[in-house]
Amino acid sequence: MSLPQIWQQPAELRQAIRRKEFRGHTAGQAPGYAQGNLAILPRAYADEFLRFCRLNPKPCPVIGMTEPGDPRVPELGADIDLRFDVPGYCVFRDGEKVGEVADLGELWQDDMVGFVLGCSLSFEAALLDALVPVRHIDDDHTVPMYNTNLPNGQAGRFGGNMVVSMRPMTPAQAIRAIQVTSRFPAVHGAPVHFGDPAAIGIADLARPDYGVPSEIREGEVPVFWACGVTPQQAIRVARPPLAFTHKPGHMLVADVRNSELAAF
Amino acid sequence: MSLPQIWQQPAELRQAIRRKEFRGHTAGQAPGYAQGNLAILPRAYADEFLRFCRLNPKPCPVIGMTEPGDPRVPELGADIDLRFDVPGYCVFRDGEKVGEVADLGELWQDDMVGFVLGCSLSFEAALLDALVPVRHIDDDHTVPMYNTNLPNGQAGRFGGNMVVSMRPMTPAQAIRAIQVTSRFPAVHGAPVHFGDPAAIGIADLARPDYGVPSEIREGEVPVFWACGVTPQQAIRVARPPLAFTHKPGHMLVADVRNSELAAF
Repeated sequence: MSLPQIWQQPAELRQAIRRKEFRGHTAGQAPGYAQGNLAILPRAYADEFLRFCRLNPKPCPVIGMTEPGDPRVPELGADIDLRFDVPGYCVFRDGEKVGEVADLGELWQDDMVGFVLGCSLSFEAALLDALVPVRHIDDDHTVPMYNTNLPNGQAGRFGGNMVVSMRPMTPAQAIRAIQVTSRFPAVHGAPVHFGDPAAIGIADLARPDYGVPSEIREGEVPVFWACGVTPQQAIRVARPPLAFTHKPGHMLVADVRNSELAAF
Repeated sequence: MSLPQIWQQPAELRQAIRRKEFRGHTAGQAPGYAQGNLAILPRAYADEFLRFCRLNPKPCPVIGMTEPGDPRVPELGADIDLRFDVPGYCVFRDGEKVGEVADLGELWQDDMVGFVLGCSLSFEAALLDALVPVRHIDDDHTVPMYNTNLPNGQAGRFGGNMVVSMRPMTPAQAIRAIQVTSRFPAVHGAPVHFGDPAAIGIADLARPDYGVPSEIREGEVPVFWACGVTPQQAIRVARPPLAFTHKPGHMLVADVRNSELAAF
């Protein structure tokens, strides 16, 4: 098995994606640079969605935003084109996912507004750097994610409940993880809960709603962070006629370094 | 019942203590100013004790120190005299507590070195300010403290295990409390543990080794911070011929504001 090529520079990776030479997961690519979740909505929904993000900064931290109809995000990279620079997209019609596409060249509309949201890959890099192990990275599987009963702040048609990701840790690791992730409010920040899953409406940690369950070892507690899947739940509730997100794991890789997203 | 007088200025409170007009607990006095734990040891033990504190900054954060034989601590207040400015002292001979005195005028020796250690009153003020309730303050009792099986770093004759204080909180409050107390490494900093008491050698939360048990309510977890009683345990182990500490709750009130002790 050949190892995948690692691009060191985000702009070079985006060019490879644009040329369809790279179609894979972006985890591990352009080490040190921020990767973002994507949500693209018609202008008639964009103002409400921005208000929704402002009300819910833990699951929906906006790190970049386009002008209506303009696919560029100069604050995250001079050459970014949201129609082509992500290796896979999901298409939603009336709030339901109807398919996946390789680019938005055909589907983009002149009234679309793109939002780039900070993602946990940034804080996981900081956790590993602080010697806090991350189980799903060690075990090489997707992070387990769960629907909760924690209601999002409602903004217009956008609402729904928070989705969380879970990482098992010892209490000492969890305390360190809370310190480390508190430095990164732009990428979900500190956890929203630890311990009893039922307290936030999770029935069974062995059956995540998205991703793959993580083993929880003796002496560990589950620690829960707000998750970037939350906006997809909000889109389901708001039912815009057309919307796009990145395909899970296929992120926008920005020219901004993770360290630039640290609050202190 | 008449309310106790509250001094607003630390220097005025210390003068009242020196004149024996104030002999009570210092909690609530000079709001906003730091209060310190006290440890006074013969010079032959002081270097080792300083190394012990450096190795164990969570239980033993040094915020002030005297020259040998000199009872002044100008870094914490121009007029401080450690022999008279605390409303009560404990006396230890060969590591065992042998009594309490109102001042050290008679017992002070020319070779004594004083250490002032940051105390949890400072971070509790920050917790309350951040709207994190503190159970033993609400219920008006001494914080519960426990011996643990967490070994202190050993420095010369000083060692022993860490003593911790416990505050019950919901997970959301605990996450906020970890953020708030992380800002105050000079006053014990972030917790050392939360959850299962047995994991750090505590058999029964209802039977603290010092202080009074706190009620733990449904949905709360115990959160444990390194405690300023730890140096007394270290003195017990090192057995210096003579040593003094403050009487519990009867602290040195410094001219330094709590906010000056914040790391960021």
